[in-house]
Amino acid sequence: MKQAYHFRLEFKVRDYECDLQGIVNNSVYQNYLEHARHEFLLSVGLDFSALFQQGIAAVVARADLRYKTPLRSGDRFEVCLRVEVQGLKYIFYQDIYRLSDGKMCLQATITTTSLVKGRLAVAPEITSALEKLPVL
Amino acid sequence: MKQAYHFRLEFKVRDYECDLQGIVNNSVYQNYLEHARHEFLLSVGLDFSALFQQGIAAVVARADLRYKTPLRSGDRFEVCLRVEVQGLKYIFYQDIYRLSDGKMCLQATITTTSLVKGRLAVAPEITSALEKLPVL
Amino acid sequence: MKQAYHFRLEFKVRDYECDLQGIVNNSVYQNYLEHARHEFLLSVGLDFSALFQQGIAAVVARADLRYKTPLRSGDRFEVCLRVEVQGLKYIFYQDIYRLSDGKMCLQATITTTSLVKGRLAVAPEITSALEKLPVL
Amino acid sequence: MKQAYHFRLEFKVRDYECDLQGIVNNSVYQNYLEHARHEFLLSVGLDFSALFQQGIAAVVARADLRYKTPLRSGDRFEVCLRVEVQGLKYIFYQDIYRLSDGKMCLQATITTTSLVKGRLAVAPEITSALEKLPVL
Repeated sequence: MKQAYHFRLEFKVRDYECDLQGIVNNSVYQNYLEHARHEFLLSVGLDFSALFQQGIAAVVARADLRYKTPLRSGDRFEVCLRVEVQGLKYIFYQDIYRLSDGKMCLQATITTTSLVKGRLAVAPEITSALEKLPVL
Repeated sequence: MKQAYHFRLEFKVRDYECDLQGIVNNSVYQNYLEHARHEFLLSVGLDFSALFQQGIAAVVARADLRYKTPLRSGDRFEVCLRVEVQGLKYIFYQDIYRLSDGKMCLQATITTTSLVKGRLAVAPEITSALEKLPVL
Repeated sequence: MKQAYHFRLEFKVRDYECDLQGIVNNSVYQNYLEHARHEFLLSVGLDFSALFQQGIAAVVARADLRYKTPLRSGDRFEVCLRVEVQGLKYIFYQDIYRLSDGKMCLQATITTTSLVKGRLAVAPEITSALEKLPVL
Repeated sequence: MKQAYHFRLEFKVRDYECDLQGIVNNSVYQNYLEHARHEFLLSVGLDFSALFQQGIAAVVARADLRYKTPLRSGDRFEVCLRVEVQGLKYIFYQDIYRLSDGKMCLQATITTTSLVKGRLAVAPEITSALEKLPVL
């Protein structure tokens, strides 16, 4: 059974994302994960780009990516996400499933934090928005 | 005979730049051209990123790219550049040659201009640096 | 009045597509255009990746891109496309419009051709699919 | 003191690799790491693209990336690499250092394996080349 998630976003592989092995290049999964996180943030009222203009930078401290099944030209998939707040850290659990058969393609843990005017600090805007989410 | 150029920069294809046809993806040539322009600008004392911090944005108005021979994994190549100032426009003629055999891979004309505090305007820093170049 | 097109595809800017000027990087527009062309081809029964497996490579000979208004973080836009067959060439007229205000962001002419087993040749699969389209 | 490495490769940040925060986008580090691995493989006689043509696919099973200090426009840096063979796995320890001050920017562990004709298997070409390396 699939886990509970806070957010899901559907994508389709674009051919330019595939490399000479004919599969989506490993680095591109981080693009998918980032876009899903930013769309999730928007869905809870946080705009990554606008926050940055205000001096609040959400940054990735660690990305741990387990590649399970490669995505290919034409594949549709879903990036699923749940998030936990741990002090200064926002930990995103992000899984990618291929839609045709539900197979897991990637399992990722992305640890992020926030810099306020360049210094590691709690960004109350982010924390308060995330703390309203149900615990999963 | 090769033309005269103001600047040359050597590159090597990186495998992630190749797509499922096993050749460098069309969009990646614009990355090569941009990087060569920015390195050229540095060589005449202009820093694209620092200019932007000062409110001077160099922007591309038109890119005309003629694809001649595809680059592949492992290829070394050279981006050659000459520039002409025409009023508010800086026109970059940029050609890419494969080093193994001198074959032309791409012939491009990139028309750029400058925005000063968001408005189309001559940026004297850029114009004076470019006008010192020999006419080719 | 907007022109007639054979195909339209909606996109949203992804933050990783923006560069240090805070606007979508020039090269990324070619990604958008390519993806729209491939989705258009699918809509008329042609699969770019499958064609390549069969020895038919659709390739870009020339890309002429006029940048009008930069796209930014969060922008939704539409890539509109019409195509003309001229002998060995398939010419794609591709325009990008921002959805919020209908402003034209990019006007592009992409001249493509086909290689069959590595040689410039008419690919009857492609030609017959495209010739069924209405003349616009 | 810096560790011992099997291979080092110098790079310079290209402006298109920076995102709207003005720093190299997180996904781009995987491009740097991949290119360094492929150049390392070439240095021991293994060509990633040629291996793939022969039915041997080197694939990433896991990427664990710790982001320490962001790279910015103009930065020069070095990707350093050592590798360990563990059965079916080739584990690459890859660290990125900024050249101006020696600061560590990224610490990564990339676990790769090989598929021979689509099945997980030892690729003797790879194993024998890697086993000639000194143990560090």
